[in-house]
Amino acid sequence: MKLYWGSGSPYAWRAMLGLVFKGIEFESKLMTFSAGDHKTPEFLALNPRGKVPVLVDDDTVVSESLAILSYLDRKHPEPPLFGTTPREHATIWQLISEHESYMAQPGSRFAGPIYFGKVQEKVEQITEAAKDLHRELAGIEARLSGSPYLVGDAVSAADAVYYPSLQQLLRAGSKPEVRDLDLGFTTFDDRYPNLAAWKTRIDALPDVDSTYPPHWRS
Amino acid sequence: MKLYWGSGSPYAWRAMLGLVFKGIEFESKLMTFSAGDHKTPEFLALNPRGKVPVLVDDDTVVSESLAILSYLDRKHPEPPLFGTTPREHATIWQLISEHESYMAQPGSRFAGPIYFGKVQEKVEQITEAAKDLHRELAGIEARLSGSPYLVGDAVSAADAVYYPSLQQLLRAGSKPEVRDLDLGFTTFDDRYPNLAAWKTRIDALPDVDSTYPPHWRS
Repeated sequence: MKLYWGSGSPYAWRAMLGLVFKGIEFESKLMTFSAGDHKTPEFLALNPRGKVPVLVDDDTVVSESLAILSYLDRKHPEPPLFGTTPREHATIWQLISEHESYMAQPGSRFAGPIYFGKVQEKVEQITEAAKDLHRELAGIEARLSGSPYLVGDAVSAADAVYYPSLQQLLRAGSKPEVRDLDLGFTTFDDRYPNLAAWKTRIDALPDVDSTYPPHWRS
Repeated sequence: MKLYWGSGSPYAWRAMLGLVFKGIEFESKLMTFSAGDHKTPEFLALNPRGKVPVLVDDDTVVSESLAILSYLDRKHPEPPLFGTTPREHATIWQLISEHESYMAQPGSRFAGPIYFGKVQEKVEQITEAAKDLHRELAGIEARLSGSPYLVGDAVSAADAVYYPSLQQLLRAGSKPEVRDLDLGFTTFDDRYPNLAAWKTRIDALPDVDSTYPPHWRS
């Protein structure tokens, strides 16, 4: 399998986590957006929308992160990414859907202006988005009081969706430009001990370290 | 199984289509939002967000339409809603994800102001959203040139997602208030013959007629 991805894209990160959670070896195709790698005819032939991630498995081409996670689970069922019982399966999809409906947009409204140097102009938007995010994080914190991973005792696709999202919030929320805004992310470990422990647990899984966005390290 | 739903909610409609595509009998719990049915302690105990659809199957409670469709498929695998091969499975999820990423928002920006009597104020928004929608619909039209349903020869969860969405666009786009705006929905059948045939094909499936929003008939 080949995975086309971009450094720091939370969507691409999900797909890569799916691969490492399953222990599937893959060929890494790191795209450089600033070089226009996603606009080449070769890449547009794989995904006309020019977006990562894209997974290529022989003659099967899959774009959209959730479709890639679903594909991996059907192609290589063990270990399962989407639970073992119908109820676990439903809970995993419910959490993923709730992320997409209630966290993804506030996440962008929060991190976008911080990454793009627009903190001054967008203080109100950032503060409001932070409130929405904390409401969702509190729900996840409560959920993690009873289990090591988001759904039960095994890592799942739900973890693959929330982990990159949380990493992005922590990175944006700890930037010096927003330290004075009291957004609640610099005291994250005290505020959300279960989430902090969960993050550490995922950090320690095999090969997760290799999925960390390269440009975040430098 | 009990399904809590609301008339005209495309999300609830998806879940109901999943049930009828599979031929599962269920108890219909029609919620009246104007009466506050979704704010009662009983309903909030099922879904603290106060949103439909919610599926209750003995002691399993599932909210979020895609989680409900996924649950139904694990609980009652035949006939499958998510394909039979890994590739079909991936294509179904890719189409669903593309709907959520590229059609859901323009759909709201298009239909919202039309339903809520804001056409005059939002002409530009409606016109722009219509362009985005037609770009997506053109992709679906092309896809349907090769198969009776969105993915292959059998109805799937992808159809359950796109059908209510298309019905909403057609309803909003044919309102007298927008007839002069030339939004491309009054000539739908000529412009998208494959989509029109697909819609007719789904209309004719068993019990699909019973899922039609009751208040749309009156």
